[in-house]
Amino acid sequence: MNVHILAVGSELLTPFFRDTNSLYLTERLNDLGLDVAFKGLVGDERPSLIWAFRQSLAAADLVILTGGLGPTDDDRTREAVAETLNRELVFREDILRNIEERFRGRGKAMPSTNRKQALIVAGAEVLNNAHGTAPGLWISAEEKAIVLLPGPPQEMRGMFETSVWPRLALGRTGKMARIVFKTTGLTESEIEVRIAGLYPKGEGRRLTILASPGQIELHIAVYTETDGRDVSREAAELADSLRSRLGLHVFSEDGAELEEVVGRLLREKGKTLAAAESCTGGLIGHRITSVAGSSSYFLEGFVTYGNRAKTGRLGVSEDLLAAHGAVSPEVALAMAEGARRTAGADYGLGVTGIAGPDGGTPDKPVGLVYTALAWEGGREVEKNLFLGPRDRVKFQSSQKILDLLRRRLLQEEKR
Amino acid sequence: MNVHILAVGSELLTPFFRDTNSLYLTERLNDLGLDVAFKGLVGDERPSLIWAFRQSLAAADLVILTGGLGPTDDDRTREAVAETLNRELVFREDILRNIEERFRGRGKAMPSTNRKQALIVAGAEVLNNAHGTAPGLWISAEEKAIVLLPGPPQEMRGMFETSVWPRLALGRTGKMARIVFKTTGLTESEIEVRIAGLYPKGEGRRLTILASPGQIELHIAVYTETDGRDVSREAAELADSLRSRLGLHVFSEDGAELEEVVGRLLREKGKTLAAAESCTGGLIGHRITSVAGSSSYFLEGFVTYGNRAKTGRLGVSEDLLAAHGAVSPEVALAMAEGARRTAGADYGLGVTGIAGPDGGTPDKPVGLVYTALAWEGGREVEKNLFLGPRDRVKFQSSQKILDLLRRRLLQEEKR
Repeated sequence: MNVHILAVGSELLTPFFRDTNSLYLTERLNDLGLDVAFKGLVGDERPSLIWAFRQSLAAADLVILTGGLGPTDDDRTREAVAETLNRELVFREDILRNIEERFRGRGKAMPSTNRKQALIVAGAEVLNNAHGTAPGLWISAEEKAIVLLPGPPQEMRGMFETSVWPRLALGRTGKMARIVFKTTGLTESEIEVRIAGLYPKGEGRRLTILASPGQIELHIAVYTETDGRDVSREAAELADSLRSRLGLHVFSEDGAELEEVVGRLLREKGKTLAAAESCTGGLIGHRITSVAGSSSYFLEGFVTYGNRAKTGRLGVSEDLLAAHGAVSPEVALAMAEGARRTAGADYGLGVTGIAGPDGGTPDKPVGLVYTALAWEGGREVEKNLFLGPRDRVKFQSSQKILDLLRRRLLQEEKR
Repeated sequence: MNVHILAVGSELLTPFFRDTNSLYLTERLNDLGLDVAFKGLVGDERPSLIWAFRQSLAAADLVILTGGLGPTDDDRTREAVAETLNRELVFREDILRNIEERFRGRGKAMPSTNRKQALIVAGAEVLNNAHGTAPGLWISAEEKAIVLLPGPPQEMRGMFETSVWPRLALGRTGKMARIVFKTTGLTESEIEVRIAGLYPKGEGRRLTILASPGQIELHIAVYTETDGRDVSREAAELADSLRSRLGLHVFSEDGAELEEVVGRLLREKGKTLAAAESCTGGLIGHRITSVAGSSSYFLEGFVTYGNRAKTGRLGVSEDLLAAHGAVSPEVALAMAEGARRTAGADYGLGVTGIAGPDGGTPDKPVGLVYTALAWEGGREVEKNLFLGPRDRVKFQSSQKILDLLRRRLLQEEKR
């Protein structure tokens, strides 16, 4: 089955808007073993819209259009589809009543412009919109299916899940199994070398590598259009092989981010955490506290940007600062220990470095970051040299210290 | 001039990849007064690629294709374009030598697969690639222009800027003036009501509103395809009218984010800052320190998640906590004052609230956040009720307190 997605709206042709609807639709279509063959982004003008729809209608078995179902003059998807299919637009009294009802429920009168939303393409089935006024449409024509969905993501998703996905799934034997590995500590080329030979080349298997500084994801998909293959088992086997090559670098297989993984481990063990941050400026605390329930293990953060704060809040001695400088393994360790002691936590993190773009010297260049961990009876520090602009150095630093903590927690588990 | 952009690559049809090249190209084409009429995303398979290119070639005057110029079997843009145009692929010895040279310069031998990149569409002009091996192509055919650019953003941008943009600009009188307003404190509907009547409807003017929680941007574009209009003056006039309706809610007109605006004001006045964060968990510090040079005004952050930290680090009294609870205007103010006093800063920020999803009560629901500011001789606190999930509550809280600080700094300026 050949599937096309057309996103409608002139804002999609400006430099600012990203179409996220089609990513969502692609994921859900993939779940049924359906691949998307083409995506088009087209403006509100009738001729362009008709042109784009006509092309896709000729080439695809299923065309999903999102957007352009609103009440304004710029919303022309219904008209363009009707004209292309050579069908009438029919006024539906029952839809109008629904829309009026929706406004009444909020104590408002329906603006007259919304009448337009009660027009449907002749012969179409109406798809109810639980989150807005624009009804969707399902049209069968020339052995093809054409689906019109509203543009606002919440409305689109709700309608797709209740009215479109189940219908597409009906009678289909196609299916997909998907596993996502999130890794840290290896570069993309290091991963490619490690997994060489495992890269699935065959029909119905896909391995997509998504690389960003500090985090590389492997998206494994095994799909089939027909019955008879156990895609879950195939995906699990592929995952086993990948895992055996990547080991501890894989920190999550269920979509969880590193801060969630660390949070789960801390919670399981009933341990607490405090963080002393210099160059990351609060990012570590922000990431840890982005996890719901983190207040049960995260006690306190110290953003000790200046030396005075390092001394006053964390007890880092002035002698140590004078002898080694603020960016040094000694100070990173003293910060981690100071955070742990001051907050009364089980684990203390300490990060100090030069985020740039200024402040680097030949001895201590931009990107030099020390990440330190302190716990009862132990401590460790790592020297890192991160590349890229300020925000990237900050992110990679936070990723590194969270990973150090994760590995320590896993090690304690083994004892 | 009708412009189409086709992004080539099967990864663009997975749920994970976003095409950012076309946003960049759109912005630069807009600068010449050129609008993009259609964007297509198509996979690596030859038939789809030929189909998509053929459609766009028939409809557009300029077709820009990105991606699919690499050395692997999956890179088929050259072949598909040649086949569609009914032209040969020609081997170019000079290109091969360039590619070999590039590898040699890195102490490597060129893999034999890269030979393929020396094939060009007959009659095409070669566009040099300063950042990679794949040359680009400019093809004139049937009074149309077809441009093939590599997919990696850095290679694509470099080639577009040196070889494509100047050529498109040559002899063009079209131009565009663009102004971006960033605002906070108003909802999208409040902005629409305020600017009603100013919304430019005419040809050659565009106002795009980009709304996200806590920040709404107005992108003003005035463009012309022919000479004779002073687009900069028109854009400035439109900006004046918009500014008069939106007042202090506009925090930036040069692309700067709120943390940069606040940073500039602090630096100008030679003032320093400390922040005490509870529900934002470090996000305020992270945002402030994302600005290069922030160490000159940001002294220290206190992520006082628990009550013990609020008492121990900020001197918030246990009585106050017991009487009003951690989420209260009294505690927010005490945090702001504690941060200011402890760090010895000119301004202290204090934020306490319930980020959710748990922890809400009928009296103190999820999204209730107090934002407080303390300075020499004054203090203020605001009560906010933010909607949305945890991360959105955190971001809106940080946005609100940075805006409070901005307004205070502007007020001091007036004296």
